[in-house]
Amino acid sequence: MELTVRKEDLVKGLGKSQSVVERRTSMPILSNVLLEAQDESLTVAATDLETSFQGLCAAKVSKPGKVTVPARKLYEIVKELPAEEIYLKEKDNNYLHITAGRASFNLVGLSAEDFPNLPDVDGIPELSVAGEMLAEMVEKTIFSISQEDTRFNLAGLYVQKRNRDGADYLRFVSTDGHRLSLVDRSLEGLEGFELDGGVIIPRKGVAEMRKMAEDAETISLGLNQSYASLALNGSRLVLRMQEGSFPDYEVVIPKVSKKNVVVNRQAFSEVLRRVAILATDRFQGVKLDFKEGLLEVVSQNPDLGEAREALEVDYDGDALSVGFNARYFLDLCGAMKSEEITLGFVDEQHPCLIKGEADEGFLSVIMPMRL
Amino acid sequence: MELTVRKEDLVKGLGKSQSVVERRTSMPILSNVLLEAQDESLTVAATDLETSFQGLCAAKVSKPGKVTVPARKLYEIVKELPAEEIYLKEKDNNYLHITAGRASFNLVGLSAEDFPNLPDVDGIPELSVAGEMLAEMVEKTIFSISQEDTRFNLAGLYVQKRNRDGADYLRFVSTDGHRLSLVDRSLEGLEGFELDGGVIIPRKGVAEMRKMAEDAETISLGLNQSYASLALNGSRLVLRMQEGSFPDYEVVIPKVSKKNVVVNRQAFSEVLRRVAILATDRFQGVKLDFKEGLLEVVSQNPDLGEAREALEVDYDGDALSVGFNARYFLDLCGAMKSEEITLGFVDEQHPCLIKGEADEGFLSVIMPMRL
Repeated sequence: MELTVRKEDLVKGLGKSQSVVERRTSMPILSNVLLEAQDESLTVAATDLETSFQGLCAAKVSKPGKVTVPARKLYEIVKELPAEEIYLKEKDNNYLHITAGRASFNLVGLSAEDFPNLPDVDGIPELSVAGEMLAEMVEKTIFSISQEDTRFNLAGLYVQKRNRDGADYLRFVSTDGHRLSLVDRSLEGLEGFELDGGVIIPRKGVAEMRKMAEDAETISLGLNQSYASLALNGSRLVLRMQEGSFPDYEVVIPKVSKKNVVVNRQAFSEVLRRVAILATDRFQGVKLDFKEGLLEVVSQNPDLGEAREALEVDYDGDALSVGFNARYFLDLCGAMKSEEITLGFVDEQHPCLIKGEADEGFLSVIMPMRL
Repeated sequence: MELTVRKEDLVKGLGKSQSVVERRTSMPILSNVLLEAQDESLTVAATDLETSFQGLCAAKVSKPGKVTVPARKLYEIVKELPAEEIYLKEKDNNYLHITAGRASFNLVGLSAEDFPNLPDVDGIPELSVAGEMLAEMVEKTIFSISQEDTRFNLAGLYVQKRNRDGADYLRFVSTDGHRLSLVDRSLEGLEGFELDGGVIIPRKGVAEMRKMAEDAETISLGLNQSYASLALNGSRLVLRMQEGSFPDYEVVIPKVSKKNVVVNRQAFSEVLRRVAILATDRFQGVKLDFKEGLLEVVSQNPDLGEAREALEVDYDGDALSVGFNARYFLDLCGAMKSEEITLGFVDEQHPCLIKGEADEGFLSVIMPMRL
């Protein structure tokens, strides 16, 4: 392998692969990136066997070939190089020689033959989606994905193709057992997708999806039972689906709300943030006391004291007092965009259902906690 | 205690006390700030028994008094409060009641009687110094203070009053055993200072000194055998001197340099940063190879590979090859401001002496390492 590449292009490609690379792994080669030169391009690839990324840079290739080197070190070096053009050359024993300006590096590599093959997703059904819309769907669900890796079937985003009144739509659902987020969006081109029973995209891959979608005007989204794929300008992200079955989440979504409260999202969020300062660290428990036209948020902590703040709301039912983890409402308010949001209650024991007019196709459920 | 105070003023005062407060301490009251209201002002005080800070805010005091509450929590609360004016009132059992807008807090406190008395530095000899100059003196020496708390006599900044040709000047020296920094500055008003044998200001206090000096046009600096004191607009920082005697540092400063190299500071720094990427993590060892007109910086690492880069320098002596910790030169280049710096060598085994024309009164010594 021998080539020159623009520093800027290589920095970008390596930058995107950094979060995919595993830092602590029992397979040293997964800490490396694969560089592969052919025709007029250099491919940069990284994988942790579950999440795989592949980026493309224009390059002047004088000799095709491939090599793997430590991802983090290569990125550090390339970022600091003192020239716009970088010369890369494979040397004996998997060394990569890097030169720019008067700086030269010989970086220890591992054989490209040992680098895992990236999943083959040729022929996966794909559709084209606005990057912004896909990023928003992820934004609205990623925060309630379970952080506990022991509950592996909850540690990802559940994706379903559904049909209502003859029209297909895509549903994203996540839950950590204490709260649930769900967003539906109609997309053109869903006919080709076969997602019987739904699929689960692992948490880490979901975060990568968001990053890639955010940067794109439109992006190609592919889905089948085994893989999710995002493609954009020669870059491709491939995510292996999580095994396991997602729980029957629909049973926890309240069918009716007996008491509805309309609250200003921004103001509610600020009050929660203040009152939560004195909540106990672990559970962030606050009490929401609703009276006619008024919500009082209260926290009590034997070690620190108590905090309370009132907020005008649109409510005319009986008094209601429910405990919640403030963090759950804060995450939710951060992901929604409606100016006013509606909290629907059945009673003190049942979960709260949250919606907002400007958050089309979205709902969230938060379980109360005993305080 | 009962008063109102502007949020902005209290945020500032509490902000400055945060780094003084001990997070993990066997004396819970040291995690608290002391609030003391009298006349038209509120004093905010924090101490770890070694470093003490006291700030002053204008306040409308309706009832004088004092109380202590957790420093971090109070700061979090005050920063988030939804109004420009804050009402504070002492309640029974050392509770502090805080109200602003519709938010109200009762924060658990501890008796102000148990808060350690701040050191009394009335009558300490003081002089007035430009904040920028004092900050620069600290900047040029703080980085080589030892980080090892076992070598307690090196874990601080050594301050001496010296006299040359009948004129007094102040000297700051620090060393961690591998490198040394020294800066001398003539100051008006040193006559009153008695610093026989020099004094050692502990590391944490030195960092606080820098912060306070940076913000000040002119600041009052007080020094005696027991305390250093900085005073500015009603705020005061008092640092208790470290016990122990500073080593005889003058013996390690080379008296003559046989080989002098002049190098562009910025370019040298960039080359070091690049080449050090492949140095071993712990010691950051790089080799400096000097030939006529040229410096080559080289690192070698059995796990990662090797890096090298050449740089034009002003040197016409014999070839010379010396190993150093790259981090030491990087820290030093960051603290100096001369465009060109001079590295003076005796031979491969002796320490390197670094000076720069625009860095008046400053010198640094770096020990070589065997690579």
